[in-house]
Amino acid sequence: LAEVLGKPLSPGSTIGILGGGQLGRMLAQAAAQLGLKCHIFCPEKTSPAFEVAASKTAASYNDQDALKAFADSVDAITYEFENIPSETAEFLQKLKPMNPGPKALQMTQDRIIEKRFLRDLAIPVPAFAPVDTLDDLQKALIEIGTPAVLKTRRMGYDGKGQAVIREDTSPEEAFLKIGKKAAILEAFVPFEREVSIIMTTDMQGESWVYAPSENSHENGILSKSHAPAHIHEDTEVEAIEIAGAIAEALNYVGTLAVEFFVTRDQQLLVNEIAPRVHNSGHWTLDACVTSQFENHIRAIAGWPLGSTRHHSAAEMTNLIGPDHDRWLELAADPEVNLHLYGKKEARPGRKMGHMTRLTSLAIPGPSANDT
Amino acid sequence: LAEVLGKPLSPGSTIGILGGGQLGRMLAQAAAQLGLKCHIFCPEKTSPAFEVAASKTAASYNDQDALKAFADSVDAITYEFENIPSETAEFLQKLKPMNPGPKALQMTQDRIIEKRFLRDLAIPVPAFAPVDTLDDLQKALIEIGTPAVLKTRRMGYDGKGQAVIREDTSPEEAFLKIGKKAAILEAFVPFEREVSIIMTTDMQGESWVYAPSENSHENGILSKSHAPAHIHEDTEVEAIEIAGAIAEALNYVGTLAVEFFVTRDQQLLVNEIAPRVHNSGHWTLDACVTSQFENHIRAIAGWPLGSTRHHSAAEMTNLIGPDHDRWLELAADPEVNLHLYGKKEARPGRKMGHMTRLTSLAIPGPSANDT
Repeated sequence: LAEVLGKPLSPGSTIGILGGGQLGRMLAQAAAQLGLKCHIFCPEKTSPAFEVAASKTAASYNDQDALKAFADSVDAITYEFENIPSETAEFLQKLKPMNPGPKALQMTQDRIIEKRFLRDLAIPVPAFAPVDTLDDLQKALIEIGTPAVLKTRRMGYDGKGQAVIREDTSPEEAFLKIGKKAAILEAFVPFEREVSIIMTTDMQGESWVYAPSENSHENGILSKSHAPAHIHEDTEVEAIEIAGAIAEALNYVGTLAVEFFVTRDQQLLVNEIAPRVHNSGHWTLDACVTSQFENHIRAIAGWPLGSTRHHSAAEMTNLIGPDHDRWLELAADPEVNLHLYGKKEARPGRKMGHMTRLTSLAIPGPSANDT
Repeated sequence: LAEVLGKPLSPGSTIGILGGGQLGRMLAQAAAQLGLKCHIFCPEKTSPAFEVAASKTAASYNDQDALKAFADSVDAITYEFENIPSETAEFLQKLKPMNPGPKALQMTQDRIIEKRFLRDLAIPVPAFAPVDTLDDLQKALIEIGTPAVLKTRRMGYDGKGQAVIREDTSPEEAFLKIGKKAAILEAFVPFEREVSIIMTTDMQGESWVYAPSENSHENGILSKSHAPAHIHEDTEVEAIEIAGAIAEALNYVGTLAVEFFVTRDQQLLVNEIAPRVHNSGHWTLDACVTSQFENHIRAIAGWPLGSTRHHSAAEMTNLIGPDHDRWLELAADPEVNLHLYGKKEARPGRKMGHMTRLTSLAIPGPSANDT
């Protein structure tokens, strides 16, 4: 049941979405365009996605009665983030088709499991070692060297639960900084650029890929993406092949994001997999025939996918915390596509919105980035 | 108060929308992108716009308690159709800023008043005469000749309340067909094409215009629009000037549609004004930097407008009645942008959705169609 849906969901059907943040909000808006309703399940009482969805449940992910009622009210289930408690996922997967499926969650919730999964597929990743104790960390540092990055195995996002360890950093302090949690030590990769591949796979296993985006981070949070990325065609082809191999190994249905480091000699190393729509794919809303959100909804509803062709090049900038105060100034630039998430409090580090600026393609006409 | 708003509405503010059909739905989705909430007021209990809005009221347009509560809950008011009862509009205009303002409604609810308004502005319109009785109709037919079109003065849309009168048509039957209502007889214009201008005007009186679209109708209902229209540059300039003169005379704020006949010798005649977003502007959702819906919301919220530049050419096709049954076949064409309105019953003549196909522009780069 978990991954299989007999036939495409008809317009008027209801998609259940776990998580009510901006990704859930943009998924719900994409579903509405296709005549599909959404039911958002989220613990927070005032969730951005609630305002644009036909139904909502504000309840804990452990509330089995609420989960049961949610599953009864929907035709298919998806999620906006991979850190759903595994009991919640297992409970729901028994009741309604949920995509991406169980393997996608198992392989991406824990950084060690994710890295081993990639290594088993012969996909290059930075050197890594598991760290459960300070003693483990000391040994791992001898093996991997500095600089390195210590990250919690689970629940990290936007640079949370991470500590960079340099030659003069005290391992004790780094381990304390991440809360002495089960962790992974990863070699710091001296990369030339960070790129990501956003790809959507339908229920027949057919994948459509977007042009790679090139990403820059500030304080561990994505700051800007521009697409298409400035990478060699061979590098692009290799990145797409890796994303395809990951999707295949996960029996993936939906939109998948794979973040890469590109080294100076054009080697690709996978940094992270996200089994969901991704911030580095927000540019697709304004620059592509079909956005990553719409294609995710199409995939999990059993529909054929739309073209990932971009009609324009794009630069996406996140609006983080107090950036939101500049909304009127940004709205005054007619070439800016402004997206605000309806969040009340502009706390530091909080993603409040994003903006995309389109530019003409160097070479007009359809691009050749579809697989 | 009616047309004036002190300063731009902040994100998190609420827009009240009268009418819950597909236009209200697409307006609500555009508002959500900007971090604005919507409250939909509509008599029908299951309205397409309800599913995508933060709040909704299902009540009659005569229910003053409901209207008062609605006005209290919103920061600005707009509407998706011009046939709001005038008492409703007057009642609400006293309570909250409502745009487009009173003059736009007064001049467009009645076809005779609209034609006289245009004639007073020296804007060419087809020959016309008011018809209140069969005797009026007989006299008007002598003055105007056949073929001619008899239309109810008020409440007509999608070809409803219209009768074509040819040489051999019985005037009695035509008058009976439109319910013997107060009417207008219009000369039938032998046009080469029908085009429309969609333009948005902000609170400072600045207007941005979209590329003209070329429209074809079937059974009185818009069937297809493609943009840019195949018209001479001089004709385009003249159409834009006419739309600008209309907006100025109406103290207009928001998105305005003006439908034109273009005769074989490139004369322009105004067919109809719609003080709202318009079906012939749906292509802007997929082909322009900023859609007609987003610009309408920006205008009535006191925001600056976004660029009306089109990055692609577009062909929009309405999905009417049973066309909706073909949703899966249409979804299987990756280059089709499918928009379904979430309506349950696909009655004949009912607009169920639309689809847009983008094509590359003949000449790449920004177009010069902004005023």
